[in-house]
Amino acid sequence: MENGGAAQTAKAEQRYPRGIAYVDGEFVPISEAKISVLDFGFVRSDATYDVVHVWERKFFRLDKHVDRFLASVAKLRMTLPVGRDGLIEILKETVRRSGLDYAYVEMLCTRGVSPTFSRDPRDAVNNFMTFAIPFVWVATAEQRDRGLRLAISQIPRIPPESVDPTVKNYHWLDLISGLFEAYDRGAENVVLVDMAGGVAEGPGFNLFAVKGGRIATPAHGVLHGITRQTCFDLCEELDIPIEARFVSIDEVHDADEVFISSTGGGFMPVTIIDGKPIGNGKPGPVTATLRDLYWAKHDDPAWTVSIDD
Amino acid sequence: MENGGAAQTAKAEQRYPRGIAYVDGEFVPISEAKISVLDFGFVRSDATYDVVHVWERKFFRLDKHVDRFLASVAKLRMTLPVGRDGLIEILKETVRRSGLDYAYVEMLCTRGVSPTFSRDPRDAVNNFMTFAIPFVWVATAEQRDRGLRLAISQIPRIPPESVDPTVKNYHWLDLISGLFEAYDRGAENVVLVDMAGGVAEGPGFNLFAVKGGRIATPAHGVLHGITRQTCFDLCEELDIPIEARFVSIDEVHDADEVFISSTGGGFMPVTIIDGKPIGNGKPGPVTATLRDLYWAKHDDPAWTVSIDD
Repeated sequence: MENGGAAQTAKAEQRYPRGIAYVDGEFVPISEAKISVLDFGFVRSDATYDVVHVWERKFFRLDKHVDRFLASVAKLRMTLPVGRDGLIEILKETVRRSGLDYAYVEMLCTRGVSPTFSRDPRDAVNNFMTFAIPFVWVATAEQRDRGLRLAISQIPRIPPESVDPTVKNYHWLDLISGLFEAYDRGAENVVLVDMAGGVAEGPGFNLFAVKGGRIATPAHGVLHGITRQTCFDLCEELDIPIEARFVSIDEVHDADEVFISSTGGGFMPVTIIDGKPIGNGKPGPVTATLRDLYWAKHDDPAWTVSIDD
Repeated sequence: MENGGAAQTAKAEQRYPRGIAYVDGEFVPISEAKISVLDFGFVRSDATYDVVHVWERKFFRLDKHVDRFLASVAKLRMTLPVGRDGLIEILKETVRRSGLDYAYVEMLCTRGVSPTFSRDPRDAVNNFMTFAIPFVWVATAEQRDRGLRLAISQIPRIPPESVDPTVKNYHWLDLISGLFEAYDRGAENVVLVDMAGGVAEGPGFNLFAVKGGRIATPAHGVLHGITRQTCFDLCEELDIPIEARFVSIDEVHDADEVFISSTGGGFMPVTIIDGKPIGNGKPGPVTATLRDLYWAKHDDPAWTVSIDD
């Protein structure tokens, strides 16, 4: 197959975004944030993580991201070197040291390296890290304005029976294969199906379809995204009916509006799927209402925590 | 859940096995072989690899491992900075510099870091590495002598429809969950099932069942292991009937002999599965015959390549 067009330049030219990481108990520039090639978090993808964003020096829904991360770490039977308060303090300090007012903040824990290179994961020393880099948008400004062009791939997302999707994980090769398929088909991003043939999720986002004022989103085999949960919370406040259930491909094609949710940008409209327009082909009113309330909540003390507290 | 018993010591105490790696175009001690936390090979497990072993300073079936690696890299639409000959020369030099006569040698390629931290994998600069560490056995000497104690988990291996198992990959969270389940059940290692309920594979090995002198191994949804292929090659030479097909759990429990295959130790007997003995509970003659011929082939110039050539 042809190469994806990457510039295969020498590694000496490697550039990194502005950022700070917490590694091995120390804060370092993001360019120095590395893990051993022997870390099971790399060679087995035996790791979990969470991403929270900072907007105008405030974390958005930090407690929910921390709750999910601590639950994921426990489910993988890993141990952090810090408790909940220590974790939050490290996250704040990571962002403060980065100098970023708008940031993508990741906390992660890998199985680590076994000192004896034993293959037994119980022998490994777990590896906790955090990093902050400039805010990452899942969709570009142009895409957010006119709506994303998605393709639905027939590749099924790794099923929940194999890998528990409530443990946020780095198993993305199915999503990456789908992404290349979408590019080949002239789309900008992809949504995979589940083993039952309904729609599932895309790389880093959940999907929602609006029909007759009602919202539906896939129930099973998808990440329980915090922004997905935020959609339910905002819908309750706005009195918009929403449900998590099986969502067919036809239902998505026939929707009045489609949008995605992600920590990387909140709610973003989708206007073309598989080359065909959704509704009138323009971002719709339900998406706009949710988007506006979402950003308004970034000034609500109940939903935010200052990095300077 | 309780912690798996890992010693959560300070990272300053991190120890590494003896070894050498080729990173960013240079040979470095294994302790310095690291990848960026922003490398998509880590945060998306968007990577492929292969492992070949060296025994008495000779690679075993090097061509087959290199063929599979190059095919995997192409399927993921990645590009290596070297061709086939250059790759082989780097592998040889990695082992020579390690000073190891018996080695576990890994070649890998990750999607790399996007210089703009774009989420588009086509923008990333692919990252090629190799490393050599002391030979790794999937089973300990005691386990190889008396036979492994396995558990069959009901967790299905990530299906081939989601992630192509012919692209050797690091998506192992299903295997790791199965491993913890096996430990909980008093076993030493695990075999997962496939979505149809037949047996699939374990962490780093394929499985074989022998009944009435005939061998069967799962056909679908498993890594096409080079040692698995070697089993077919040796069976042809030995005139032992063998087939790849659906293999049920009952069939494995009722087998005369069960064994596993891996680059990490060749053919190794399994004598207890789910707490019950296989056959007479001792390693069997078919396994021993294959094991002996496998190791004899390590002196065959047709199957080996010296690291000093």
